[in-house]
Amino acid sequence: MSAFDDLLAFQRQTEALSSVAERLGWDQETVMPRGATEQRSEEMAAMESVLHERRTDPRIGEWLDAAKPETPAEVRTVELITRDFTRSSRIPARLAAELARVTSLAQGDWAEARANEAPDEFLPTLDNVLMLKREEAAALADGGDLYDALLDDYEPGITGAEVARLFDAMRPRLVALRENILGAENPPQALKGHFPHDTQIRLARACATAFGYDWSRGRMDIAVHPFSSGRWQDSRITTRVVETDPFNCLYSTIHEVGHSSYELGIDEDYAFTPLGRGVSLGVHESQSRIYENQMGRGRAFTGWLFDRMHDAFDGLNVADADAFYRSVNRVTPGYIRTESDEVQYNLHIMMRFDLERDLIAGRLDVTDLVEAWNGRFLKDFGVSVDRPANGVLQDVHWSVGLFGYFPTYALGNVYAGCLNAAMRNAVPGLDEALASGEAEPGVEWLRENVQRHGGLLPPRRLIAEATDAEVGPEPLLDYLDEKFGRIYEL
Amino acid sequence: MSAFDDLLAFQRQTEALSSVAERLGWDQETVMPRGATEQRSEEMAAMESVLHERRTDPRIGEWLDAAKPETPAEVRTVELITRDFTRSSRIPARLAAELARVTSLAQGDWAEARANEAPDEFLPTLDNVLMLKREEAAALADGGDLYDALLDDYEPGITGAEVARLFDAMRPRLVALRENILGAENPPQALKGHFPHDTQIRLARACATAFGYDWSRGRMDIAVHPFSSGRWQDSRITTRVVETDPFNCLYSTIHEVGHSSYELGIDEDYAFTPLGRGVSLGVHESQSRIYENQMGRGRAFTGWLFDRMHDAFDGLNVADADAFYRSVNRVTPGYIRTESDEVQYNLHIMMRFDLERDLIAGRLDVTDLVEAWNGRFLKDFGVSVDRPANGVLQDVHWSVGLFGYFPTYALGNVYAGCLNAAMRNAVPGLDEALASGEAEPGVEWLRENVQRHGGLLPPRRLIAEATDAEVGPEPLLDYLDEKFGRIYEL
Repeated sequence: MSAFDDLLAFQRQTEALSSVAERLGWDQETVMPRGATEQRSEEMAAMESVLHERRTDPRIGEWLDAAKPETPAEVRTVELITRDFTRSSRIPARLAAELARVTSLAQGDWAEARANEAPDEFLPTLDNVLMLKREEAAALADGGDLYDALLDDYEPGITGAEVARLFDAMRPRLVALRENILGAENPPQALKGHFPHDTQIRLARACATAFGYDWSRGRMDIAVHPFSSGRWQDSRITTRVVETDPFNCLYSTIHEVGHSSYELGIDEDYAFTPLGRGVSLGVHESQSRIYENQMGRGRAFTGWLFDRMHDAFDGLNVADADAFYRSVNRVTPGYIRTESDEVQYNLHIMMRFDLERDLIAGRLDVTDLVEAWNGRFLKDFGVSVDRPANGVLQDVHWSVGLFGYFPTYALGNVYAGCLNAAMRNAVPGLDEALASGEAEPGVEWLRENVQRHGGLLPPRRLIAEATDAEVGPEPLLDYLDEKFGRIYEL
Repeated sequence: MSAFDDLLAFQRQTEALSSVAERLGWDQETVMPRGATEQRSEEMAAMESVLHERRTDPRIGEWLDAAKPETPAEVRTVELITRDFTRSSRIPARLAAELARVTSLAQGDWAEARANEAPDEFLPTLDNVLMLKREEAAALADGGDLYDALLDDYEPGITGAEVARLFDAMRPRLVALRENILGAENPPQALKGHFPHDTQIRLARACATAFGYDWSRGRMDIAVHPFSSGRWQDSRITTRVVETDPFNCLYSTIHEVGHSSYELGIDEDYAFTPLGRGVSLGVHESQSRIYENQMGRGRAFTGWLFDRMHDAFDGLNVADADAFYRSVNRVTPGYIRTESDEVQYNLHIMMRFDLERDLIAGRLDVTDLVEAWNGRFLKDFGVSVDRPANGVLQDVHWSVGLFGYFPTYALGNVYAGCLNAAMRNAVPGLDEALASGEAEPGVEWLRENVQRHGGLLPPRRLIAEATDAEVGPEPLLDYLDEKFGRIYEL
């Protein structure tokens, strides 16, 4: 056995254990009895402790020194293991334990403060989390920029400054489009009615099937916040049902099918190696978004969906497939990121990115966060935040220490824009297929050009090679202008 | 921190990890996508490897040497950890790995041979498993009896010779009762009809609730072979549905509720310690059996069940609650252990015990096993085995290396007989409660006298203290004679 083989054998077991830990998380959010929370938290802690020990095992350093990778896949494997080992080794065990402890409690504090509409109850906790995250960032950054070090965990290879330039370039066109839309004279009609639970689930399954979800390697359950979970042979999706709003269930489902299909689409030779998972959160989000938005909310697929829903719910309050398409893509003012549309979503992200970057850099104090949030929201959205749960308390992310995570949502949209342009060129018959409930030609193109590579290529190189173009915001912005220009007759 | 504290902290994490491994097994049998088997097998192997390393960690030996346990619970904890550590350390890693590999393949060979009705296809594999198990037994026995060493894993503290004496004492009365029953003039009527899946599940939930199953710490799912799984705050049951035979579903459910309630009934202070699980398979089976048989198949509870089933299925082919009680307890000739009744079940076990003891001792060759099985079956049951799937190929146990496991089923019945006699004395109103679908007074007595102690007392001492009597077969045999004497008017 060479050092590389030893390294891979060790890594293989670590990957298997980390997949077990992920499955435990799935269990907790879907099927776990409600009385089992303390036990599950001990089980998760035990798994994390085993995983941390393995990730910082000094033998990894020795194997890495002696490894002689040959193929590009081997070279990249060594690169990814080195990266993880370096990051894990830089964080002192004391800090890792303290972060785990504090963030696990902070999530409860956040939920309570949100329920009480009382940001002051939560801000001291957030300050605590922020201090620990700055300490972690300093350990990881090794003299470099603190925010970059955190961002690198979710979207390797991009810097805060690059993201800022990208967002600055996008903002004016998005703001202008948003204003034109909200001033339009003939807005789409909203879908209204009562849409029974079981029928929604049946349609959600049909949508997942239409998007090629492999049921032999997955399943669908109900969760409070939809998510996907797992890799290789077992990637499961969840959805939720709101009986007044079937789009919530159906488009959550298609979104999670995008995430899961990415994991299931990776070359099976990469299973149990660091190449065997989605390469970044941004690329992951590009898959969920292109399934959900560019394919799922397009005129072609919504035509198919209109017929299905019309049958399933014994008629709809919108007259025809055109009106239905417009109602799927309705843009209305709103405070909540997760409820927003393709146009406004990125504006929600941009303000969070600026605020969290200032927090990590020490340019903004937690005590000034509410004022900063509300001021920025008024400036970007033209509305005053009415209550904290609609403002600074709406997202769980910061409470659990996820600083540097938000921008990956918008990066996903940008990547999806690039991929959509290339995919439409390469697959001219896609809309025809989507119109009969068949996303397979698009899915196939994405599998071939993005998904199967797993972690082989760094995120932006992956997108650039798939699209044969530089990664930039224009394809997304052009797509939005064109799509919403037509819908709103701008 | 004392050595005992260090030992306990280490053990706590091992217990949490072993609970994770068990949850993974539950997932595999209930909700896992069918395409995920290879991945799951790698995940299980990784968990087993971590657990094996922890169970044989040399620090355990050092802590044990230095530990100064004080309370009875601490003394017993050290005793149980010592026992596990000694057993785990005696098995060479090579043998453990080989056994895991061979038994995992053997299960597939067994299933195929059973489907093909071809014992010859399976016997070479079984011979292989047997050789490895003899090797394992020799390592564990350290000069003692091979079969005892294996039996000790499932029912600590009892020997093969003791089991043989017990079974020899039981056999004549069981054989006589069986012959009288099968010769009786007025046998009970069988329940017949079509019993829809969803209605059975609804009734199964009602039965589980009647037996005090704690739904906040459990759940019920469908599995091919019903089982229960998990401990402390999370012990789940499974059931199955045969639409022509509702007793299969309902009594499987009550049986598994017995197992799960044992785990959930253990003193919560014992969670994550070796005291925090059922003390032996025999005691475990005593709980499932007393729930299922002595309470669940008694005249009182079946009266309640008759009304529920009569309503749920719009009438039944049996006339009244008395006829229903008799049909629940019908005894018919049959080849299959798992389908047999309270009277014949132990006879099935006794022949397996004798055969496997001879196999392990080297007194019986695998090549002679079919003949030995068929000869013994004819002798004990008066019928020739018609095909291998009804004979030597019916049980999975030996293929996966479970030698010494079978007798614990019959020991469970014996313990249940002892416990039932004591419980009836202590809880005179039990039948009145059962007649209105309330098993709580019996469950409460079992929780107080058996379940809450977890691993604190060795199996037979636990039963002896709970019943204030020596453990013996008479209470079970008296109960069977009395119950079936009435039903069959003997």
